[in-house]
Amino acid sequence: MSNMVLHNYYRSSTSYRVRIALEMKGLSYDYVPHHLRHGEHLEAAYLAVNPQGLVPALICNDGTLLTQSLAIIEFLDETTPEPTLLPKDPLGRARVRMLAQMIACDIHPVNNLRVLTSLRTLFGAGDQDVANWFRHWVNEGFGPLETLLTASPETGTFCHGDTPGLADICLVAQVTSNARFGVDMAPYPTISRINAACMALPAFQKAAPQNQIDAE
Amino acid sequence: MSNMVLHNYYRSSTSYRVRIALEMKGLSYDYVPHHLRHGEHLEAAYLAVNPQGLVPALICNDGTLLTQSLAIIEFLDETTPEPTLLPKDPLGRARVRMLAQMIACDIHPVNNLRVLTSLRTLFGAGDQDVANWFRHWVNEGFGPLETLLTASPETGTFCHGDTPGLADICLVAQVTSNARFGVDMAPYPTISRINAACMALPAFQKAAPQNQIDAE
Repeated sequence: MSNMVLHNYYRSSTSYRVRIALEMKGLSYDYVPHHLRHGEHLEAAYLAVNPQGLVPALICNDGTLLTQSLAIIEFLDETTPEPTLLPKDPLGRARVRMLAQMIACDIHPVNNLRVLTSLRTLFGAGDQDVANWFRHWVNEGFGPLETLLTASPETGTFCHGDTPGLADICLVAQVTSNARFGVDMAPYPTISRINAACMALPAFQKAAPQNQIDAE
Repeated sequence: MSNMVLHNYYRSSTSYRVRIALEMKGLSYDYVPHHLRHGEHLEAAYLAVNPQGLVPALICNDGTLLTQSLAIIEFLDETTPEPTLLPKDPLGRARVRMLAQMIACDIHPVNNLRVLTSLRTLFGAGDQDVANWFRHWVNEGFGPLETLLTASPETGTFCHGDTPGLADICLVAQVTSNARFGVDMAPYPTISRINAACMALPAFQKAAPQNQIDAE
C-alpha cells in the first residue's frame, strides 16, 4: 500500500490542521509542497489533481482526492479511530465541531491569502489595512470563543476535556497564523493556555510550519 | 419536553441550511427571527444567549446552545438518524463533507453580510463592487464544484447518489443566495440540475426564505 500524499504549504493554516491530525494518528505521508505565494497551486499539473487549486489536498491510498481540512480530519478520525479527535456523545461532538467551525468558517476563510490579496488588488488595501482586517476578524471570533471556553465546565486542559481534538487543532493553527499579523493575545487567556498545552505535545510541534521541508 | 428553538433569519444562507435539515428530519421547532439588517442579532438579550451574535443558533431541548450550521446539522443527523444526511462509508462521508465545505468554508464566509458591510465601510465599496465580489467568490468555488460533481460517478440525482444530504443542503442555500446578486448559473448545469431536484422536495420548499414568518 502506497503512502498517502499531502499536497500542502508549510504556512497554510488549513494544511497545518491536517498535518497535526496525521501526526496525532501516527500516520506516515508524503509531503508535496506548493508555494502559494509563488502561485504554484495554480499550475496545470496541480489543477489536474485538485480542480480547486487549493491546499491542503490529501490523496488517499486508493487514489481518492480529498480536500477541505475538516472533512479530511473527520475521515482520518473515522478510519484511524485512536486517539479519537471527537467525543463519543452527540452533544460533545457538536460542541467540538462548533468550536472548530467558529475558527474554520468564521475566522480563517475571511483572512486567507487569496482574500487578503483581493483586498489589495480590488480596493488598494496596504499592509496596514490588511493587518487591521486580519486582526478584526480574529477578534470578532476569538472574543466569543474565549467566552464560550471560559464559561463551560466541559473545557479542560484542552477545548473539550483533557484530551486534544478537532477544536484544539483549529485553535493552534489560528493562533500560529495570528502571530504573523501581530494579534494581541492578552484578551484571550483561556485560548492561550490551551494553545500552550497543545504546543507541549510532539504532534503539534512536528506539524508546525517552521518544521516543514518548505519552511523559509 | 419543550421544542427546540431556532434563532435565525429568513434570508440567512446558514439559517436556511439548518431549516432544511430540521424539515427533512421532521423535527418541530420554535422559530425566533432576528433581523440581521436591523442589527437585532447584536442586542444584549441575544448576545446573552449566543455570545457570537450570529444566526443560526439552536437551543436544544436540554437548553444547550449550538451554533455553526454544519455542526448543528451533524448533531441532528446523529440524534435523529433517518433520513440520513451522510453516507455510511468513510470515503463517501468525506466526499459529502468536502462538497459541503467547498461552499460552507470557501464561498459563504467571504460573502456574508458582515463582510460585505465591511467592504463598504472600510474600502468605500459600492453596490456594484459588492456584487462583483460576491459573484467572484461564488465562481471561484462553483467552478471546481461543478467539475467535481460532473466528473464523479458518485454524483446521482443529488450530490451523492440518489438521496439528498448535507452537500445538497449547502448547495441549495448558496444557489438561493446567488439569485440576489445576479450570479449567472449557465456555467453550472450539474449544480443547477441538483438544485432543481432538491427544490422539488417539500422540505427544501418549506424551509425556503420566502416561506418564513419574517420574510419581507
